[in-house]
Amino acid sequence: MAPVPSDIEIARAAKKKPIADIGAALGISPEALVPYGHDKAKIGADFIGSLQGRPDGKLILVTAINPTPAGEGKTTTTVGLGDGLNRIGKKAVICVREPSLGPCFGVKGGAAGGGYAQVVPMEDINLHFTGDFHAITSAHNLLSAMIDNHVYWGNALDIDTRRITWRRVMDMNDRALRQTVTSLGGVSNGFARESGFDITVASEVMAILCLAQDLADLEKRLGDIVIGYRFDRSPVYARDIKADKAMAVLLKDAMQPNLVQTLENNPALVHGGPFANIAHGCNSVIATKTALKLGDYVVTEAGFGADLGAEKFFDIKCRKAGLKPDAAVIVATIRALKMNGGVKKDDLGTENVEALTRGCANLGRHIANVRKFGVPVVVAINHFISDTDAEVAAIKDYVSHHGAEAILCRHWAEGSAGIEELSYKVVELAESGAAAFKPIYPDDMPLMEKIEAVATKIYHAGEVTAEKPVRDQLKAWETAGYGHLPVCIAKTQYSFSTDPNLRGAPEGHVVHVREVRLSAGAGFIVAITGEIMTMPGLPSAPSAERIHLNADGLIEGLF
Amino acid sequence: MAPVPSDIEIARAAKKKPIADIGAALGISPEALVPYGHDKAKIGADFIGSLQGRPDGKLILVTAINPTPAGEGKTTTTVGLGDGLNRIGKKAVICVREPSLGPCFGVKGGAAGGGYAQVVPMEDINLHFTGDFHAITSAHNLLSAMIDNHVYWGNALDIDTRRITWRRVMDMNDRALRQTVTSLGGVSNGFARESGFDITVASEVMAILCLAQDLADLEKRLGDIVIGYRFDRSPVYARDIKADKAMAVLLKDAMQPNLVQTLENNPALVHGGPFANIAHGCNSVIATKTALKLGDYVVTEAGFGADLGAEKFFDIKCRKAGLKPDAAVIVATIRALKMNGGVKKDDLGTENVEALTRGCANLGRHIANVRKFGVPVVVAINHFISDTDAEVAAIKDYVSHHGAEAILCRHWAEGSAGIEELSYKVVELAESGAAAFKPIYPDDMPLMEKIEAVATKIYHAGEVTAEKPVRDQLKAWETAGYGHLPVCIAKTQYSFSTDPNLRGAPEGHVVHVREVRLSAGAGFIVAITGEIMTMPGLPSAPSAERIHLNADGLIEGLF
Repeated sequence: MAPVPSDIEIARAAKKKPIADIGAALGISPEALVPYGHDKAKIGADFIGSLQGRPDGKLILVTAINPTPAGEGKTTTTVGLGDGLNRIGKKAVICVREPSLGPCFGVKGGAAGGGYAQVVPMEDINLHFTGDFHAITSAHNLLSAMIDNHVYWGNALDIDTRRITWRRVMDMNDRALRQTVTSLGGVSNGFARESGFDITVASEVMAILCLAQDLADLEKRLGDIVIGYRFDRSPVYARDIKADKAMAVLLKDAMQPNLVQTLENNPALVHGGPFANIAHGCNSVIATKTALKLGDYVVTEAGFGADLGAEKFFDIKCRKAGLKPDAAVIVATIRALKMNGGVKKDDLGTENVEALTRGCANLGRHIANVRKFGVPVVVAINHFISDTDAEVAAIKDYVSHHGAEAILCRHWAEGSAGIEELSYKVVELAESGAAAFKPIYPDDMPLMEKIEAVATKIYHAGEVTAEKPVRDQLKAWETAGYGHLPVCIAKTQYSFSTDPNLRGAPEGHVVHVREVRLSAGAGFIVAITGEIMTMPGLPSAPSAERIHLNADGLIEGLF
Repeated sequence: MAPVPSDIEIARAAKKKPIADIGAALGISPEALVPYGHDKAKIGADFIGSLQGRPDGKLILVTAINPTPAGEGKTTTTVGLGDGLNRIGKKAVICVREPSLGPCFGVKGGAAGGGYAQVVPMEDINLHFTGDFHAITSAHNLLSAMIDNHVYWGNALDIDTRRITWRRVMDMNDRALRQTVTSLGGVSNGFARESGFDITVASEVMAILCLAQDLADLEKRLGDIVIGYRFDRSPVYARDIKADKAMAVLLKDAMQPNLVQTLENNPALVHGGPFANIAHGCNSVIATKTALKLGDYVVTEAGFGADLGAEKFFDIKCRKAGLKPDAAVIVATIRALKMNGGVKKDDLGTENVEALTRGCANLGRHIANVRKFGVPVVVAINHFISDTDAEVAAIKDYVSHHGAEAILCRHWAEGSAGIEELSYKVVELAESGAAAFKPIYPDDMPLMEKIEAVATKIYHAGEVTAEKPVRDQLKAWETAGYGHLPVCIAKTQYSFSTDPNLRGAPEGHVVHVREVRLSAGAGFIVAITGEIMTMPGLPSAPSAERIHLNADGLIEGLF
């Protein structure tokens, strides 16, 4: 077989159709599309409103085993499955997250799938795209400026500046901004105080945009944001600062989902991208719901492994948006399962059925977990050249012993032709009516018990610990009317436990809740279990040093 | 006469044509336009490149008397004159600056002309528009992050962190960010140092984008940026940080001019918007040059009054870009001239010919100054309801005694029908061949003498003073090869002098150069004469509190 060219080479060679043609195939008229160039468009709000009466298509979640440096290819499989479903005659729409601009200049490069399963235009999607993240940055920082401005002009709300929890954001990896002192330089610059910046994807505004049903809901949620506390400890809301309505104005266009296409000219909505630790890590509700009205099948993904991404997709996004997933695909690679079985990265090229079988415990746990939500499961083995027949047989055998099926997929190298079998299986599961979605805990459970439910049922922890101030804070929020909210656990993505080095399927570990935060606008309580980085740094030789325009004016160095 | 509705009401009632039609009227094919929605587009770089052989149209500068709180309407007149020229059969293209998002939420509201002389879509132009300013913010802050990252990873360039002059930017009025300490919080966040944020329009990247001829020139200028100094006092360039090429990638789309339309469906390029104090205050060179290839007439504006805006337009933009203006329009209002003559704002409704005549000294000085550049002049009296016949007669009389003509213009209330006379006069001046453009000082004059040339010839100062360190710095830059650069004087816009309260036409005042800065990428030396604010604050009741979406989803509160 000929070697597969690099992602950017493949993306650039794509025979893109005009975005109006992609829209037309979904029944969207040119007037209902807001074009951004000739290959990107937002779907107009009026058109989305007109879809209300239509029936919904089937909703398929693509999730994964715990990530390793070996790579799983979750976005690649999401895109590949969308192409595969279209190939076998289903009208399928892909829903993925927008990549963040900041990390492009660090280690990561781009994020729009890979090989022959990509969404295009890859360069635009990875850079400014349609400006959504810039709008979120502006809206977030307008609130920040108005808070300090309120204090400057007399602080009529009696805000305790030591307890302002609302920081600033920038879509950049910039460790120097993590912790700052602002308002230095004297009287005309305000009252000096400690603060800092997070990366834009960590903004609560991002989570809000991704969970809001429409513009009115967006505005209400923005008003609900708690920006800090008064000297009497009562919360101060964004609506007290009178920032919520102007923030909604800044986010008006960003609320509309972005339509692009795959390399095979199938439709993809790329919209929103909240962190999968302090937030829920899924694309926007409005994109998913719109896609469900437009397609027979919607294929979407959730961040990190199923313990974080799928759990939050089910317990936060689906619960709150009233979505009912019909099937789930768990992506695994033989390389990553071997790492879960103890093999070092440098030794992954060597066949090792024993380690693979050991690592399969991680996959088995995720299969069982997803089923606890009432959603039928199939495993996609994202094929690598180094995989041996014995290894493939071993994983298939393991999965079938756990009552599911594992299907080898070659979409990365072959596009939709390589993922037909999985596509048929997904259709079979979705059409079977086997799905009976239910969240893992009810709305009316006390907050600490919700954390315990996730930790014991999903993480298989033996115990959840927390200091008294954390428990008191949770009780105080229950008293304040936030007890019905779901919990969003910020945990390492590398393990079921809070120890990133504990691979496989650990049991009986202790989950310590170090801190809890209220995201009242987004509508969840964040429980933090370990160090969570909300502003990344750049490596010693950042990829920005290599990103450039070539002699033809094309972008090089994104990958 | 029926009262004129509010700007936003007029803008919303506009019968916009599809942007492809506006482009087609200029000979731009749909493929050469990059649409942003149905009423905005960028002009493709390849198309711009294809225009090189064509002859240039006539270039008309719209400038003004020193601004007062009474308002002059320079952008309004620029738009009105463009419509007027089209009305009398000339193919005219308007070139104005993009407004900054930040100030929209402060006092100012929008900035896209007014009354029946506006560019639309007004809301988009005032908010995110095509994302140019967001791209500039990202490019600027990528360099900032890479500087601190370089220091963090060992500081191989031996940068003296006390002498890093490159700050960060945000398109927001946020006084709390003026002066900060960054990299607090311990080892993993870097080395704590003092720094701060400017508003995006004050970024040198903005000035560079507006002066660059093309992408290659942009990239070179970005590399030329001096970000600070080593311990041995030698300069460190952006290219030493290896940030210049990735910055150019971020700015690739932002370099393309934005095409919109006036209320009368005439073409307008709205592109770039550097500060008019620490930078040159003009729209982009690439927009102006493109417009000159597409139209018989190009009407453009420069920031603040003619002492700052026109001087910099001539001495920086025209000199460096090889532009040769054919005529200039000086906008004055009777109200503003009365304020220059000593009348208080509350008394402007009362006829006062004596004060008006006294205030005309300000106008007379600007007429004489513009002529020093070899450019013929006409005065536009931007009509207000309160203007009396006697006052109009007095200003016409004053101007004719100074060898020019003052023409009453009613474009604000009547659109192009109200500005026909001025349009014919502008054509007469431009076709007369009277223009013989020359800058006010030669390239090879020492830097201090250049400052003195502007101060004495344009400001009518008696003396320029500067401490020895400032003079030594200028000499050092001459030695380092920057002696050929033009000077960009940062001075109050309210007076010919450095005292904002000294209206009219002061003479013999002292101009004290407090500080000089090198903008090596933009290609000028900034001479600062007084307090210059590069990060505005918000007022006690910012307009953000009133900006909102109405029940129909339309934006209210921008004006």
